[in-house]
Amino acid sequence: MTAPSRYPVPDLQSLPQDIRERIQAVQEKSGFVPNVFLALSHRPDEFRTFFAYHDALMLKPGGISRAEREMIVVATSAANDCTYCVVAHGAILRILAKAPLLADQIAINYRTAPVTPRQQAMLEFAVKLALTPQQIGAADRVALLEHGFNDEDIWDIGAIAAFFALSNRMAHLVEMAPNEEFYSIGRTTR
Amino acid sequence: MTAPSRYPVPDLQSLPQDIRERIQAVQEKSGFVPNVFLALSHRPDEFRTFFAYHDALMLKPGGISRAEREMIVVATSAANDCTYCVVAHGAILRILAKAPLLADQIAINYRTAPVTPRQQAMLEFAVKLALTPQQIGAADRVALLEHGFNDEDIWDIGAIAAFFALSNRMAHLVEMAPNEEFYSIGRTTR
Amino acid sequence: MTAPSRYPVPDLQSLPQDIRERIQAVQEKSGFVPNVFLALSHRPDEFRTFFAYHDALMLKPGGISRAEREMIVVATSAANDCTYCVVAHGAILRILAKAPLLADQIAINYRTAPVTPRQQAMLEFAVKLALTPQQIGAADRVALLEHGFNDEDIWDIGAIAAFFALSNRMAHLVEMAPNEEFYSIGRTTR
Amino acid sequence: MTAPSRYPVPDLQSLPQDIRERIQAVQEKSGFVPNVFLALSHRPDEFRTFFAYHDALMLKPGGISRAEREMIVVATSAANDCTYCVVAHGAILRILAKAPLLADQIAINYRTAPVTPRQQAMLEFAVKLALTPQQIGAADRVALLEHGFNDEDIWDIGAIAAFFALSNRMAHLVEMAPNEEFYSIGRTTR
Amino acid sequence: MTAPSRYPVPDLQSLPQDIRERIQAVQEKSGFVPNVFLALSHRPDEFRTFFAYHDALMLKPGGISRAEREMIVVATSAANDCTYCVVAHGAILRILAKAPLLADQIAINYRTAPVTPRQQAMLEFAVKLALTPQQIGAADRVALLEHGFNDEDIWDIGAIAAFFALSNRMAHLVEMAPNEEFYSIGRTTR
Amino acid sequence: MTAPSRYPVPDLQSLPQDIRERIQAVQEKSGFVPNVFLALSHRPDEFRTFFAYHDALMLKPGGISRAEREMIVVATSAANDCTYCVVAHGAILRILAKAPLLADQIAINYRTAPVTPRQQAMLEFAVKLALTPQQIGAADRVALLEHGFNDEDIWDIGAIAAFFALSNRMAHLVEMAPNEEFYSIGRTTR
Repeated sequence: MTAPSRYPVPDLQSLPQDIRERIQAVQEKSGFVPNVFLALSHRPDEFRTFFAYHDALMLKPGGISRAEREMIVVATSAANDCTYCVVAHGAILRILAKAPLLADQIAINYRTAPVTPRQQAMLEFAVKLALTPQQIGAADRVALLEHGFNDEDIWDIGAIAAFFALSNRMAHLVEMAPNEEFYSIGRTTR
Repeated sequence: MTAPSRYPVPDLQSLPQDIRERIQAVQEKSGFVPNVFLALSHRPDEFRTFFAYHDALMLKPGGISRAEREMIVVATSAANDCTYCVVAHGAILRILAKAPLLADQIAINYRTAPVTPRQQAMLEFAVKLALTPQQIGAADRVALLEHGFNDEDIWDIGAIAAFFALSNRMAHLVEMAPNEEFYSIGRTTR
Repeated sequence: MTAPSRYPVPDLQSLPQDIRERIQAVQEKSGFVPNVFLALSHRPDEFRTFFAYHDALMLKPGGISRAEREMIVVATSAANDCTYCVVAHGAILRILAKAPLLADQIAINYRTAPVTPRQQAMLEFAVKLALTPQQIGAADRVALLEHGFNDEDIWDIGAIAAFFALSNRMAHLVEMAPNEEFYSIGRTTR
Repeated sequence: MTAPSRYPVPDLQSLPQDIRERIQAVQEKSGFVPNVFLALSHRPDEFRTFFAYHDALMLKPGGISRAEREMIVVATSAANDCTYCVVAHGAILRILAKAPLLADQIAINYRTAPVTPRQQAMLEFAVKLALTPQQIGAADRVALLEHGFNDEDIWDIGAIAAFFALSNRMAHLVEMAPNEEFYSIGRTTR
Repeated sequence: MTAPSRYPVPDLQSLPQDIRERIQAVQEKSGFVPNVFLALSHRPDEFRTFFAYHDALMLKPGGISRAEREMIVVATSAANDCTYCVVAHGAILRILAKAPLLADQIAINYRTAPVTPRQQAMLEFAVKLALTPQQIGAADRVALLEHGFNDEDIWDIGAIAAFFALSNRMAHLVEMAPNEEFYSIGRTTR
Repeated sequence: MTAPSRYPVPDLQSLPQDIRERIQAVQEKSGFVPNVFLALSHRPDEFRTFFAYHDALMLKPGGISRAEREMIVVATSAANDCTYCVVAHGAILRILAKAPLLADQIAINYRTAPVTPRQQAMLEFAVKLALTPQQIGAADRVALLEHGFNDEDIWDIGAIAAFFALSNRMAHLVEMAPNEEFYSIGRTTR
């Protein structure tokens, strides 16, 4: 088994109770502990706020569906060559979108992935904010408004791209490795 | 007065108590409310976790001094052309480093700023992670170890660069404007 | 079913005999006709020379194994965001290397994929030739020689990267789409 | 005399008959053997398919004139800093276009070369496919259609750019040097 | 005090009379000698023509105000990370525009600086000429004409960007350091 | 005949005497008036200082030969796709170096041009200063010192690259066109 990261991972029993409980909850739900939980448990304060931030953006209700949020994660993480995020969130996207090919298609080339024009516009905005944030301007927002997004949706799209700008860099920094389980999850439609 | 951002800022009284108290505390300490607090109060959950993450990285003890942490913020935010972060954290850097010229020197060209070789290496690592995170590798970590940083310092340096990758993108997304006060703070040494 | 490309695909019976036989042979061997054969059958002369060139490079004996040749294809095609080549050759790599995760790992970030240092050097050379061919120089060749490659190996590595520079551009030009079968081939080890 | 490439060139008599005959034919026609023939004779199988591919694209009839095909070669090869292809195909372009200055003008800056707007659009498409193939999309094809090109012309333009993406990389790989004759061919109009 | 540059600076008395007088004049007017005068006095012939060129562009009458000319200098010099030019001309801009924040705003991100749309167009043209001169074309000139600039204004804007392309490179070459006075000049409005 | 630039060129008789005399002198020496003289005569003050600067750098004695100075011009101007400077200074280089192929070889790919290792180092430094001036640092200077250049030579190399950074941008700005004579000058060795 590959190590979750290049930093030591504390023994589960030695972790603060809230972190241990969060890890146990995800283990029960998923059948395994995604390595991002283990890698970040090395820094409990950062663990807590990382996942609080993640949940505030990825689980909140709004005009962007959960599958669409994962599309943003996969497209921007691929733009940053982030193995952990592409593989782990690719698996989540396959499940949420019930689309076994979509994650690979977005990861390799989001421009030609079979998504709606509205989703295409959303991914263009997100990848532009990920790669050249200083070039996001009024014209980019207008393009989203014309596809029916409102100002709160634009915040959601941009904030998810921003959060994974952080997340991708943490994964590269600590050499976070995806669990093997993620590679095959959701690849069949039954 | 310039608006803090292009999103509406809630009336202070309408905000959740914890957020209101945090804003009042910073107002009392600084004499004004930095616009990042107002801009993010539009989204209370993201406000809470943004500042929790900020504090976990910027206020924690460790081998990187508080002034050095602000150097990382200024250098990486300048690489992203982020007006809010360069101006606000430039002011904090001037105060913490008691160096009225240093923030401008780092923001314009960190490569020639009058810092120590160790700090120079720290800024090179941080800017590389900010701009081309996929290219950070073993050689970059070795360069930091050779300047006396340890693995926990490397996490700190990288995590600050990662957090401001998020922060810069949020500032561009919402068109966050720095308070005028920041431009002149710390420009005299007396 | 997605169309193989945006150009018309001739009816199998209307194709020249040699092309029809090649297509039938691959159908029998693979159980389906990879879309690159259908897409290029629109131009019989180019079809013939494309596959002759492919076979001259990918099937010839030499110091680079067949799995390693496919690694080069996946890494350089990913650098060009080429969906067809990454998906189709990713499948072939999984089979040849008997490594169900390797193609995704190389496609997302070849720098951190679990390959040998020798293979890592090979991929660096190939991706550099793919992206900035004018910057390949003596130092790059020396790096390969130091990993035990000889001059004929260097020709092989470079020629494969060069051929897929062509192939990736043809795939983008005609909007070649991978067959769905390729996405799942070789993902289990039994 | 400069060597044709950094790889050994077989003695003409030792080459397979078809390759020897092709070389002798070009020698008779041109008065000298262009180095690309000598350089690639090191690998007979690749020699055969390289020139078959070249001829399938450069000699076929169609809506793009032979001089225009050479313009594409010069513009895309210049974008890749490929000395062999710019010098050799620049000579051919001067002869075919009966324009002694045109090859230099396209090689240095195709954007300002004195070509028709239709040719300008053709070169923009070709250079974009050469440099950033993943960014070719519907809008680029529409621009060509608006200048009167049809879908088969677009295949021709793109396929030539794609073939010289291969050719330029082979030339860089083996350090192919142009024959001195090419530099002066076609520089006078009489 | 930081040295003006990494090259020796001649003693004032040893300089040719015209150069000595120019230096004394600026000293009397400004209260200090900007380091660019000292740095370039190492090469009297280049000193003379550098300042003659500067004056021909920056002091000439025309449709671009003196403050706007300094905006061009600050924006293009920031694009080149040139500490001397950003700091020294930032000070001049603050004074001429009577705007204590403007130089920092333009230096950090000219796209969001509070200038008029006409000035914004002017800065876009100048920065594009500074960074990718080969891509300036008819559409860029039309954009300026539509904002009311005429052909002579376009020459002025472009020539200033061109002159500071030289100036920024000289400053990097000799490691020119701004005088400390420049950092604080013009930061208060009274 | 192509116009020298897109700006009006004054009638020779209407020009100030010194400019008219300089133009007449070059006409007598060269047999034609290079278009840069006509294009810049539109602005007499800039004409005077442009050529004074040019002469101060290109005609001064020193450790860099006149042919080597022209190599720098050709290499950096090619990096900026500047047709006027590559064609005009390519002609001068052919004459000064008595090398009919050298200008094309440097213009297309200076990395593989047949120059000495010392000249190769000189061109690398110059092109780096031309393209990414902020990245020139101590290591680049050391590389030149190791090839036997001294600090004054480094100033010369850098200053020529800096002056043609200006010159290339002026040529792009005014769409300066090379005289047809330049294309063929010096292409024969007798």
